Amino acid sequence: MVGGGQLARMTAAAAVGLGATFRVLSESENESAALVTHDVTVGSHLSLSDISAFAAGCDVITFDHEHVPGPILAKLESDGILVRPGGGALRYTQDKLAMRGRLTELGVPCPRFTPVSTLADVAVFARGTWPVVLKAVSGGYDGKGVWVCESAEEAEEVLALGIALMAEEFVPFRRELAALVARSPSGQGAAYPVVQTVQVDGICREVIAPAPGLDPDVAVEAEATALKIAAELGVTGLLAVELFETGHGGLLVNELAMRPHNSGHWTIEGARTSQFEQHLRAVLDLPLGSCAPPEGTFTVMANLLGGTDPDVFDRYIHVMAADPAVKVHFYGKGIRVGRKIGHVTIVGGPDDEVEAVRDRARRAASYLRWGVEDGD
Amino acid sequence: MVGGGQLARMTAAAAVGLGATFRVLSESENESAALVTHDVTVGSHLSLSDISAFAAGCDVITFDHEHVPGPILAKLESDGILVRPGGGALRYTQDKLAMRGRLTELGVPCPRFTPVSTLADVAVFARGTWPVVLKAVSGGYDGKGVWVCESAEEAEEVLALGIALMAEEFVPFRRELAALVARSPSGQGAAYPVVQTVQVDGICREVIAPAPGLDPDVAVEAEATALKIAAELGVTGLLAVELFETGHGGLLVNELAMRPHNSGHWTIEGARTSQFEQHLRAVLDLPLGSCAPPEGTFTVMANLLGGTDPDVFDRYIHVMAADPAVKVHFYGKGIRVGRKIGHVTIVGGPDDEVEAVRDRARRAASYLRWGVEDGD
Repeated sequence: MVGGGQLARMTAAAAVGLGATFRVLSESENESAALVTHDVTVGSHLSLSDISAFAAGCDVITFDHEHVPGPILAKLESDGILVRPGGGALRYTQDKLAMRGRLTELGVPCPRFTPVSTLADVAVFARGTWPVVLKAVSGGYDGKGVWVCESAEEAEEVLALGIALMAEEFVPFRRELAALVARSPSGQGAAYPVVQTVQVDGICREVIAPAPGLDPDVAVEAEATALKIAAELGVTGLLAVELFETGHGGLLVNELAMRPHNSGHWTIEGARTSQFEQHLRAVLDLPLGSCAPPEGTFTVMANLLGGTDPDVFDRYIHVMAADPAVKVHFYGKGIRVGRKIGHVTIVGGPDDEVEAVRDRARRAASYLRWGVEDGD
Repeated sequence: MVGGGQLARMTAAAAVGLGATFRVLSESENESAALVTHDVTVGSHLSLSDISAFAAGCDVITFDHEHVPGPILAKLESDGILVRPGGGALRYTQDKLAMRGRLTELGVPCPRFTPVSTLADVAVFARGTWPVVLKAVSGGYDGKGVWVCESAEEAEEVLALGIALMAEEFVPFRRELAALVARSPSGQGAAYPVVQTVQVDGICREVIAPAPGLDPDVAVEAEATALKIAAELGVTGLLAVELFETGHGGLLVNELAMRPHNSGHWTIEGARTSQFEQHLRAVLDLPLGSCAPPEGTFTVMANLLGGTDPDVFDRYIHVMAADPAVKVHFYGKGIRVGRKIGHVTIVGGPDDEVEAVRDRARRAASYLRWGVEDGD
C-alpha cells in the first residue's frame, strides 16, 4: 500500500487476520501506518524510482490516497505491475472535471458544473444566484479546495489563487450520505449499507450506519449507482461515493474516493467484513466478504480531532472508564488542532436508540478532544 | 509480549487501535507474531539476558505463554520491571499440583487429585476404579502431558517417562465450559460470557459463545469463580478457567491459563472488546472494556488445523466464496497435520440457529483443512 496514513494503518491490522503479507510505502518512519507495520519502505509516492523499488516483490500495489501522479501510474502499469485501482480509474479522483464529465455521460445525477477561469465565467454560471461553489479541479480533500462563495467578490478572491477551478451549483441538501462498494478485477461487486455522514467545515465528524430513516428505494438507488460507477470506471478495490440527499429524496453525487474511506470506519466493528479487509480482498481478486452488519445492530462512528493539549492519555482513561462499550481507535499521530487523530465507534442493538448512541459517541469524542463532554 | 505465537500476533493487531506501542520477543523472525509486528526482538524466553534486554524500555511486559521459568520472573520483578501477570500468579500455571492445592484451599471445586510417583500411589488413588487421569505436573498444553489411563498397565507406561506426575479422578463431564475474565492491577475485574468448548484429543476445536442453554445460575457461579481465582491468585491480565460441567450441573475447575486463550478468540468479532485488547488494557492498568456481545448475537469459532496439503490458498478462496460471512484468521504458520494454523468465526443473529451456524463453521474449517466440507 502506497501511503502511510491511518487508512494504511488500519489496512495493516486487517491484513493480519487475512494472512496477507503487507508492505507499506511511507514518507517517514513516523507515519501512522509505519509505526505498526512490519514491512515498511520509506520513500515518496511522487517518485517513480521509489514506487518501482517498493513494488518489486509485491503481487499487487494499492493506495491509501489518490495522490500518485498519473504518469507514474501509467509507467508502473506498462512495466507489468498490478496497480489496483489502476490509473484509468484513479484519474477520476484526481481530476474533478473529468469525473463530472464522465458521470454525466453515464447519466449519474450530479450538481450542475462548469470549468471556470475568469470572474465572467463564474457570473455566467451563477445567473445572479449565489452562493456558487468553487472547487479546485485537483488536489482537494477534507474541505480543502472547496469554497462556498456568497458573492462575486468572494469568487474573485478564489480566482486570485491562480489554480484550475470549476464551479458547481450550491446544493441545499437535506443531509449527506455515502455509498461504499467494493469491486474485484473479476467483476464481483459488494455494497455496504448506505450511511449518513455529518460534515463540519468539510471534515467528516460522524457516521451513522445504516442511514436512519432512509427510504429503502433511495438506499437501493444509491448502492446501484455506486456499483455502476465502480463498473463503468473500472474501479478495483473500494469506491466511496459521497452523496447529497436533496429535500425531495433525490440523490446527487458529490465526491468519489477509491480506497478505504472515513465513511467506512464503522465497518471494523459494525459489519461482518471491515472495509479494510474488503479492500485487500478486492485488490487481491479474492471473493468479497459479506458487507452486512450482524442482524439488528447499527453503528455510530465519531471522528477524533486534535485539541490544544498534546497529551490525550489522561482523557483517554476517563473515556474508557465512563463508557466501557466505546471502542477507541488511535492513529498514532501527533496532536494538532483539528487534525484527525482517531475515531470512536459504538455498536447499538435492537433496544438502543440511535440518538442516544450518537450522544455517547459525541461525548467520548468531545472529551478526548477538549476534556469536556459537550465541547463540540 | 514475550513469545511470538498466534496470541501475540492477534494482540499486535489489537494494539493498533488501542494506540499502544507493542514489542514482541520471538524465538525467530518467522514466528507468527514476528511476521506482522513492527517492533520485533529475536531472543529466547528461557534467557534472562534476552528478556532483560527486551524489557528495557518497555513500560510493562506480558506473555503469550506461561513458559518463562519462575527464577527469571523473580529476577525481572526484583529488578523493578513490571511483569504482568507476575511470577507469583504464573506459578499456578506452571505447577498443576500447586494450582490444585491453592484452589482447594480457596474452596474452589476441583477433581480429586494427588501427587504420584509409583504405581502403588496410582493404585491407592484409583481404589480399583479406572480410568484414572495422569498429568505432567508442569509443561503440558493442548492435550500433551495428559493421559487417560484405563488400567494399571497404561499407568505404568506413563510412569516410565520419569517426569513429575499427578493423578486426577476421571470426570465424566456433560460438556466443557470456559470462563474468561480480566483483572487489572488496580483490582478492576470484568467477565466475558461463559462459553462451551469442544475438545478433540485434547485440542480445542470449537467454541460457542455464550454456552447454549447454560443455567444462568451456573453461568454466574462460573464467572464468580473465575473472578475469585483471579483476585486470590493476584492475576493481572486475562485468566481463562477451563471447567467441566458435570451431569447434574455442577462445575469442576480443569485448567487455568493467564493470557489470551483459544476459548476467547470469538471475542474479536463477537464481543465489544476483544480479549486481546482487554489483556492489553488490563496489563497496562487501563479501565477494562465491555465484555458483552452486541445484543441478540452469539458467536461460533472453529479452529483450523493443518491437513496434508501445505498450500491452503486454493481452498481458502472456495471458503470465502461459499460463505461470505465466515471470518477467517490465519496465523502465518507453516502447515503440519494437526497444528493450529488459524480459526474461523461466524457471528449469528436473533434469527439464526446455533446448530446451523456451528455447521457452517465446521464446514469452513473442514474444507480449509481437507478440501471437503465433512472431513472432520
